Amino acid sequence: MTSHLMSPVERAQLAMMLEVAAFPKPGNVDRCHDYSDTKLEHFLASMIFARPALEEADTGKGRIGEIIGHAVRQTNVHSGGNTHFGAFILLIPLLYGKDIRGASEAVTKTDVSDAVAFYKAFALTKVRMNERDELDVNDPRALDDLRERGMTLFDVMQHSAPNDMVAREWINGFLLTRRGADMLHQIGPGREAIVEMFLTLLATEPDTFIIKKHGRAVAEDTMAKAREVLDGKRVLETFDAQCIGAGINPGSIADITIAAIFIALGEGWSWDS
Amino acid sequence: MTSHLMSPVERAQLAMMLEVAAFPKPGNVDRCHDYSDTKLEHFLASMIFARPALEEADTGKGRIGEIIGHAVRQTNVHSGGNTHFGAFILLIPLLYGKDIRGASEAVTKTDVSDAVAFYKAFALTKVRMNERDELDVNDPRALDDLRERGMTLFDVMQHSAPNDMVAREWINGFLLTRRGADMLHQIGPGREAIVEMFLTLLATEPDTFIIKKHGRAVAEDTMAKAREVLDGKRVLETFDAQCIGAGINPGSIADITIAAIFIALGEGWSWDS
Repeated sequence: MTSHLMSPVERAQLAMMLEVAAFPKPGNVDRCHDYSDTKLEHFLASMIFARPALEEADTGKGRIGEIIGHAVRQTNVHSGGNTHFGAFILLIPLLYGKDIRGASEAVTKTDVSDAVAFYKAFALTKVRMNERDELDVNDPRALDDLRERGMTLFDVMQHSAPNDMVAREWINGFLLTRRGADMLHQIGPGREAIVEMFLTLLATEPDTFIIKKHGRAVAEDTMAKAREVLDGKRVLETFDAQCIGAGINPGSIADITIAAIFIALGEGWSWDS
Repeated sequence: MTSHLMSPVERAQLAMMLEVAAFPKPGNVDRCHDYSDTKLEHFLASMIFARPALEEADTGKGRIGEIIGHAVRQTNVHSGGNTHFGAFILLIPLLYGKDIRGASEAVTKTDVSDAVAFYKAFALTKVRMNERDELDVNDPRALDDLRERGMTLFDVMQHSAPNDMVAREWINGFLLTRRGADMLHQIGPGREAIVEMFLTLLATEPDTFIIKKHGRAVAEDTMAKAREVLDGKRVLETFDAQCIGAGINPGSIADITIAAIFIALGEGWSWDS
């Protein structure tokens, strides 16, 4: 075994791999659980196929909205559907800007063309939006709306932030990404730290993917149950099985987990316990 | 979902991912089983980290022995030990030569410098050799021996072929790689085909990694039991647990499985069932 300085792109791929391999992660695809339409292999294949877009982001050149679009297109080639849309929204600025500070600055420089490229990619993913959302991605007029209002991709994220914890990261300086990375440093190396960090985020933040799919009450119930697992009052494996049975998958917290692993790896956190 | 022509390097990484994710694969690390020192994440990390060597091989330029050495060094960066040494011995000529015919030709063009580079990489892996082997990789005189005898890397593989099924692939035109790929085409798409192909190879060929570790009797017993699983006379999961308990891991057949998936993917076999 020799020492090895990972490239940022390798760190991003490793973060995507480590997140999906970690188990048990309540409700999500993990090493032990598939959904009928989306399996472990789909997540790992997306991680392989996204490489050109991750490399593009790592150059720190080009337009962030377009690069997110490239990542979506490069991974939209299997039957598993959307696997990493939210993760790309975080990883691509983080690669582009080199760290949280650089990413936070880069996202403010997006323009209308980024927003248009992003919406075009969004339309491919079938990611659920809030019903009341006025900028419906499936509405062809949405692109005209963006252009008329002169909305940048940063504006779009600001618009979505109240109802989307991934969009909120763009606005608040990647707050939960930072918190997740700090937790990994604090807990220690390896797979178990990822599971504990995931559970802690799940216990403290309502997952906006769950809210969009099942409503706020279900998201809050999921938080309370995650807290009980952390407090030793509920069995993790049972909670996991209940979530999977009910289709309650905390997809947004998974996205933030990937971003947090990416940041922590770059700061010396060891995945290899 | 859009169509996507995978690059050869993506195919190689996908093959490495699909092999280790497929389950249950008797005795080996798979989606459901780790060994205490080598875990699923180590195999998947090696798949990510090997990319530069796979790209180097794909150029069809440079020296095969050195490129294998680069792959070994690029993946020798975690605590999981050797994960893919045998797989690289197969994948790198196959990438280099574009197909089985090209690879079979390329390996005959290796020279003494390839053999030296290969032995230097081999020394890093702690892969078990036959006790009687006169070209002991841990013996510093082995490199002098190679040079004095003028042995090319092809000669080394020919020398090892009687006792090593991976080396034998170089000599016999990638016979089992071809057979495995044909099986995948015949069985059909997806994860289950990989498991059935693996089991069929295990039932028909003594795994030389098992022979080196446990002796021929154990390898032959493993074949017989794999045959019983295929015939419905033995439960796959029980057989898997027995192999893992006894440390019987068919590592060479796993290497050939990866090469077979790589070839089959290039011929249109679909992993995505």
